Amino acid sequence: MTSVTSEQGTSTARRTTGGRPADGRQRVIDAAVAQFAEYGVEGTSLQMIADAMGVTKAAVYYHFKTKDEIVVAVVTPVLDQLLAILREAEAQRGQAARTRAFLTAFTRLVIGHRQLLTLLYDDVAVLRILHEHWPHFDEFERRVPLVLVGPDADAGRLVAAAVALTGIVAAAASPQFTHLGDAELEEHLLDAGLRLVGARRRR
Amino acid sequence: MTSVTSEQGTSTARRTTGGRPADGRQRVIDAAVAQFAEYGVEGTSLQMIADAMGVTKAAVYYHFKTKDEIVVAVVTPVLDQLLAILREAEAQRGQAARTRAFLTAFTRLVIGHRQLLTLLYDDVAVLRILHEHWPHFDEFERRVPLVLVGPDADAGRLVAAAVALTGIVAAAASPQFTHLGDAELEEHLLDAGLRLVGARRRR
Repeated sequence: MTSVTSEQGTSTARRTTGGRPADGRQRVIDAAVAQFAEYGVEGTSLQMIADAMGVTKAAVYYHFKTKDEIVVAVVTPVLDQLLAILREAEAQRGQAARTRAFLTAFTRLVIGHRQLLTLLYDDVAVLRILHEHWPHFDEFERRVPLVLVGPDADAGRLVAAAVALTGIVAAAASPQFTHLGDAELEEHLLDAGLRLVGARRRR
Repeated sequence: MTSVTSEQGTSTARRTTGGRPADGRQRVIDAAVAQFAEYGVEGTSLQMIADAMGVTKAAVYYHFKTKDEIVVAVVTPVLDQLLAILREAEAQRGQAARTRAFLTAFTRLVIGHRQLLTLLYDDVAVLRILHEHWPHFDEFERRVPLVLVGPDADAGRLVAAAVALTGIVAAAASPQFTHLGDAELEEHLLDAGLRLVGARRRR
């Protein structure tokens, strides 16, 4: 957890100190994810999370003041990794290397969080919450196309990059491919992404 | 309106008879779309729609018994077109012709309903409602990959087809490209889709 969570100071402190409070915090997160899976983020309340845990709403409230805070706690670690991937790709020399580095690590991250993605994908509440609470959202949206197709890309390449990124996430979240193993799906998604942005796969 | 709406018999009859009741029905739909744009489908109630129209909830209820029925009325005409596109592409001779026919018409349809798409995309409620009320949903999901990459396609081509379809819809709905005109965005999306499924553009 880095600067991203600095806005939730006390919660972060609780998590990183370990011990009982952190355990309680994680138990709320786990219970929330289970409720999200069943009722969606929009359809889940703090009361429902408390009921599922067999505790009072005040016990949940001790760790999180709002449902939005829980969503941020669930998703922020993944977004932090995404930001690290972006920065590492940006540090590569040459556009071809930046493209390949970002797309490879992006696809791996997506597959690595396939279950969470399936759960939260399509939930407009999550997007709204991240827009409001993840301070890097706009910066990220602006920098990803640059690292993927370079600063001089025309509209066609930018559209292709957007199709690649959104398509990879959507296809990874699709129930259509649950029968494919992680490694196989990752390989096919990466191939599709590289083909879209006109890059060769390095084997 | 074909068999798709036969399940909402009375509403369909009202719509097709024209005159006052049909106008009232369309006014509810228009007011609902405006509320959806502001509060999302999940966050909109029949009461809110009635309030926005300056009528009683009973007046809305005369046309639609549930919010789900309104969503179906908004989206069904587009889905009917999608089904027609699918059938026309399936009737083409040769896989290359089927691929090109479907992808071209699909992209044109997506761009033609760009505003509606931006509004409803990401709203998980819409997907749930369509799953429940649009009788062709499963059939459609099964047949689209077939028309796009053929019955003998391996997992890699099926994944590429899924990236193309979901990526085209997501990129068309993205605020990133609102500055691009419809014709230009359609061309870039089609190029990306054809590249993904390994088809050549016929110019």
